[in-house]
Amino acid sequence: MTTHFVSTNFTQGMAFTADINGHKVLMDTTADDGGADSGPSPKRLMLAALAGCTGIDIVSILDKMKVPFSHFSIDVHASLSNEHPKTYKLVKMRYKIKVSEEDKIKMGKAVTLSQEKYCGVYAMFKAFAKMDTEIDFIG
Amino acid sequence: MTTHFVSTNFTQGMAFTADINGHKVLMDTTADDGGADSGPSPKRLMLAALAGCTGIDIVSILDKMKVPFSHFSIDVHASLSNEHPKTYKLVKMRYKIKVSEEDKIKMGKAVTLSQEKYCGVYAMFKAFAKMDTEIDFIG
Repeated sequence: MTTHFVSTNFTQGMAFTADINGHKVLMDTTADDGGADSGPSPKRLMLAALAGCTGIDIVSILDKMKVPFSHFSIDVHASLSNEHPKTYKLVKMRYKIKVSEEDKIKMGKAVTLSQEKYCGVYAMFKAFAKMDTEIDFIG
Repeated sequence: MTTHFVSTNFTQGMAFTADINGHKVLMDTTADDGGADSGPSPKRLMLAALAGCTGIDIVSILDKMKVPFSHFSIDVHASLSNEHPKTYKLVKMRYKIKVSEEDKIKMGKAVTLSQEKYCGVYAMFKAFAKMDTEIDFIG
């Protein structure tokens, strides 16, 4: 069984620095919540992880399918519950990408493969949130 | 209802950059998975989010309780499932902190309050993983 390890240290104010295999990520809260906004909030970092996980899958799958692409981005909009603990309830993912007309179906397949088979972060999100997907083809 | 928004762009190789309220976070995969290891992997970023969320809660609660502390860190060890999609199944959190002898009980209460009431990331993790907690008092 594979185990992942992350060490996180309090720095100052409300800020923490995570050490992820040598990569440092600073986290903080916004001024509204008593922080200095010196880094992203931990909760929003989960949305970055979601987009990064499925994005990396799709790049890998498109490469295997020999599908050239450009302008690839993923926007995530996530609605929080009103009561504490505040959790994401509805997560809307909007994939934007430029591929040739004949490769659009392959891009759809790559998104489905990531969401249903490979992306662990997506699978974890499905345990607590309703997921919604849209693909916008550019140009 | 509050909505969080994160935009994530493909950069090169397998790497993506997330824009979280103006804070940029680069994500990549390790060389074993075809990446250049130019940033943390998305999945491990979730463990940083977990530690950061509960850590920020605890700093805020200890401040309200007028409990001075130092050397505060949170280590997270998380075991992955063997099959795709690989998700975290058991997450061990080890809080390390230095507080005075008479404040140890308050630190225990702060951890419980974060995990049971305030930390949204912890609540989301509980939906898919078994959680385990340990508090180490230093010195």
